[in-house]
Amino acid sequence: MYRTHTCGELRISDVNKQVTLAGWVQRSRKMGGMTFIDLRDRYGITQLVFNEEVNAALCEQANHLGREYVIQVTGTVNERFSKNSNLPTGDIEIIVSELNILNAALTPPFTIEDNTDGGDDIRMKYRYLDLRRTAVRKNLELRHKMTIEVRKYLDSKGFIEVETPLLIGSTPEGARDFVVPSRMNPGQFYALPQSPQTLKQLLMVSGFDRYFQIAKCFRDEDLRADRQPEFTQIDCEMSFVQQDDVLELFEGMAKYLFKELRGVELTEPFLRMSWADAMRYYGSDKPDLRFGMKFVELMDILKGYGFSVFDNAAYIGGICAEGAAHYTRKQLDALTEFVKRPQIGAKGMVYARVEADGNVKSSVDKFYTQEILQQMKEAFGAKPGDLILILSGGDAMKTRKQLCELRLEMGNQLGLRDKNKFALLWVVDFPMFEWSEEESRLMAMHHPFTHPKDEDIPLLDIDPAAVRADAYDMVCNGIEVGGGSIRIHDAKLQAKMFEILGFTPEKAEEQFGFLMNAFKYGAPPHGGLAYGLDRWVSIFAGLDSIRDCIAFPKNNSGRDVMLDAPGFLNQEQLDELNLVVDVKE
Amino acid sequence: MYRTHTCGELRISDVNKQVTLAGWVQRSRKMGGMTFIDLRDRYGITQLVFNEEVNAALCEQANHLGREYVIQVTGTVNERFSKNSNLPTGDIEIIVSELNILNAALTPPFTIEDNTDGGDDIRMKYRYLDLRRTAVRKNLELRHKMTIEVRKYLDSKGFIEVETPLLIGSTPEGARDFVVPSRMNPGQFYALPQSPQTLKQLLMVSGFDRYFQIAKCFRDEDLRADRQPEFTQIDCEMSFVQQDDVLELFEGMAKYLFKELRGVELTEPFLRMSWADAMRYYGSDKPDLRFGMKFVELMDILKGYGFSVFDNAAYIGGICAEGAAHYTRKQLDALTEFVKRPQIGAKGMVYARVEADGNVKSSVDKFYTQEILQQMKEAFGAKPGDLILILSGGDAMKTRKQLCELRLEMGNQLGLRDKNKFALLWVVDFPMFEWSEEESRLMAMHHPFTHPKDEDIPLLDIDPAAVRADAYDMVCNGIEVGGGSIRIHDAKLQAKMFEILGFTPEKAEEQFGFLMNAFKYGAPPHGGLAYGLDRWVSIFAGLDSIRDCIAFPKNNSGRDVMLDAPGFLNQEQLDELNLVVDVKE
Repeated sequence: MYRTHTCGELRISDVNKQVTLAGWVQRSRKMGGMTFIDLRDRYGITQLVFNEEVNAALCEQANHLGREYVIQVTGTVNERFSKNSNLPTGDIEIIVSELNILNAALTPPFTIEDNTDGGDDIRMKYRYLDLRRTAVRKNLELRHKMTIEVRKYLDSKGFIEVETPLLIGSTPEGARDFVVPSRMNPGQFYALPQSPQTLKQLLMVSGFDRYFQIAKCFRDEDLRADRQPEFTQIDCEMSFVQQDDVLELFEGMAKYLFKELRGVELTEPFLRMSWADAMRYYGSDKPDLRFGMKFVELMDILKGYGFSVFDNAAYIGGICAEGAAHYTRKQLDALTEFVKRPQIGAKGMVYARVEADGNVKSSVDKFYTQEILQQMKEAFGAKPGDLILILSGGDAMKTRKQLCELRLEMGNQLGLRDKNKFALLWVVDFPMFEWSEEESRLMAMHHPFTHPKDEDIPLLDIDPAAVRADAYDMVCNGIEVGGGSIRIHDAKLQAKMFEILGFTPEKAEEQFGFLMNAFKYGAPPHGGLAYGLDRWVSIFAGLDSIRDCIAFPKNNSGRDVMLDAPGFLNQEQLDELNLVVDVKE
Repeated sequence: MYRTHTCGELRISDVNKQVTLAGWVQRSRKMGGMTFIDLRDRYGITQLVFNEEVNAALCEQANHLGREYVIQVTGTVNERFSKNSNLPTGDIEIIVSELNILNAALTPPFTIEDNTDGGDDIRMKYRYLDLRRTAVRKNLELRHKMTIEVRKYLDSKGFIEVETPLLIGSTPEGARDFVVPSRMNPGQFYALPQSPQTLKQLLMVSGFDRYFQIAKCFRDEDLRADRQPEFTQIDCEMSFVQQDDVLELFEGMAKYLFKELRGVELTEPFLRMSWADAMRYYGSDKPDLRFGMKFVELMDILKGYGFSVFDNAAYIGGICAEGAAHYTRKQLDALTEFVKRPQIGAKGMVYARVEADGNVKSSVDKFYTQEILQQMKEAFGAKPGDLILILSGGDAMKTRKQLCELRLEMGNQLGLRDKNKFALLWVVDFPMFEWSEEESRLMAMHHPFTHPKDEDIPLLDIDPAAVRADAYDMVCNGIEVGGGSIRIHDAKLQAKMFEILGFTPEKAEEQFGFLMNAFKYGAPPHGGLAYGLDRWVSIFAGLDSIRDCIAFPKNNSGRDVMLDAPGFLNQEQLDELNLVVDVKE
């Protein structure tokens, strides 16, 4: 028995108890003849006291303990003279009578404190030390609690968690697969799943009715910020459901989780916004609704007055930043520079302030009468003190996306994107297809198994690009936290979909034959969705990056710098796998 | 809304309700002018009734429904005339007024019944149909319930589930790794974990204190029966613990699971048997204690009477099969053939019956007096009617293993291995090392991080083969369901261990440097264990094979015959990975 109590457990009611604790030396200080040590474990911090007058040898030993030494102490719980109300254990201390060093420690390369002096790289290399910091560990405790609650909710709704295999077949449609050479099947490879999509659909064919899995998924993509080659999905599927059934059940889950994990009661039904409206009014399929600044289209009002930028535009639209008329020229210039950055790509920005007397003063006053500007003001519902920002361009969708960036930036600048406020909505009616410039063909926006809206099925033959899908995303604070669709359960409709996506029947058979065959044996109507667990947790934890809620994340080159992986194989391993490595210079 | 109720839900109290159900046609039968259809979903079976006289067209439509058609019906709940007490819904039926075919079905290649006519191969190819069978689905429901209860228990004990990465580094010690080529790190490979062993130890260094994970693990081994290339572990680790702390906590979990999942109360503390005793008395490190037949050594009694087989043996030992003296000569000859099979390898078997008068009649009577045979009888505590079976050989350990096979076979023949009886124990004090003939060196019996027993540490330098470890297995009914050890937390002791295992310091650093380095920064004493989830579930479910509790298992060639995986990559995929496939003929 290494300990009778943890370091977070003792209270004033334990005074005079003989106890044994074990943990890490967080810090020590010497005051006169006394040495105080903060002993830390996962559960908290307890103060240890060594008195030179009482036991000089023990005190001397304590003076030589370094940071992060692992020790075991026995002593008596004592009421503190000066209490620390910031610590649950702050009323007591341990008068130590025995000290046992369980393990010495080198001085850590950065401080094990919430505000550490360690940079990203060193903390990743010594991730096992970084994880000692309470701030980091709390994220993983939250992740644990979240998966417990997700399972509790879904189990209570009759969902069965089924583990699907990780060594499956490669399906080149979609993102790039990670592959695994098979030694027993020479020359052949497994693929790691990008998601359990087809397998969960097979489980519906099997009559599992309600399936879920907290599943590891893999995508070999070039990593941008906040992407990981392996990530975790809360993957769900239901049979005999229509879109509303799915949305209601998972809206319930979101509300349950917010209540259990954050104490936040979301009482209102989530807004359901069509993809078309989301793009039109927010320039994004994942609008951040913590704040307003809904887009207002200005083509009718501002076109045709000789301002060639607007006169030649396919789209003119703006946002109204409430109370931001105080923005200086310098601030406005900076905003213009912001939208002109190559990542955003706007040509320029027009602004207008609503002055105290209601007059509108704009950067393009020479083209517009006050009467026109007042019409514009009305269109925004703008008040004195408000700032109107306008973008225009030759491609409506591109300009809307630029305006979206501007809106989000203004939200940031005006402090409207509070991490402790949560705005959830469903974006629905996504387009079935999107045009791929790269491949010069229609691609499935969601995936090839997505059901088109019944009323749009006739359009599949005449105008597939106009077809909308029974697809939906759950959005929280401008982040897509989950998404899914009703699936096609009819083999003929599925075959047509593959045809539109440019699959020959042979290629469709080769890649998805097992699914299309399964559908011939009695597939129920079904649908589902998947949540990105990493992203969900990072929202609950108020984190900017998903990396901080992953125990051992990889860097942007897909490397685990702590394990120094990936690495080279030896020749024997390669030979067994019938592989030759041929790196082109 | 596809249904108002499931097919397992309606009762006599629902009579006269208007309901809508959806599901699969299990079977249909025509009786006079009535058609009866059993409609099936995951939740049960409900009888549908169509009456030709009431609605001839509808009845005609029902007569054309094939097996496994997916249909939706609306109708009225009616009390059955002849009730079926085997079904929870057996008191009612639905008088159908509307029928909607949601999906037609080809005739399945085997019957969807508990006792199906489908062979193994066809059922694996059409696994999605096999999973429709209640008997198979129940196993996966049990698996789901088991993971829910495991998490509930461990969460209540303060364990945190932490997901560790699946793309890690290759560690050639131990079994063969599955590897994953990295596109972004040309020529380099990740490995899929054989277990999260080193990562969970790092989490202990991080102060996580109590960790668990239900984790996918991978081993590229030649598959014997009941092995899968990917399998699932309940993986656990604790800090500041000694062996007893671990055993107590996980004994508690086993008892909890038996109670929750099987309604079995295991009230007694589990027996703890040393590895040496397990080998000595049962010839196995996983003895099946559902029955007796403990080995009795007979060297002192039977040696030196001119029976050269025994006189030259290094080991003579036997078992006493209670009440089996009625075994015929034919049965005994069959047992002799059984132990002489090459997989077992005994040279022969000696038997002795205890007759009604207490005399012993043996197959080697010409060498032994009745007095000697009576001594032998006493050694077994044998009674009239018992059968004694004796093996001998030149290698004690090999002979004990042969005797173990004989004991298990007798257990089977005498019906002593009841699947509804559970005998659990801990086997402890495993040897630290075992000699590898293949590699001509000592190998870690458990793994290289296992802590030797404190009292045996001095033997590391002088007789490493005699060193015992703080390692333990949980055994249930002759099956190892879990195992683990106290780990080394001292970098110096770990280095010595690698030295004994034949690692150069460079090789140890290359493969496990990250762990040994971590240990320098304050590693707590720690230990843990891992359960094989697949095996655990198969015991609870009373299955002979783990395959039946895995949704989509692979065959003995590591193939998923349903998905037809693994498969060949296209040239573009290989090029991106800098790989050339070179299969030797």
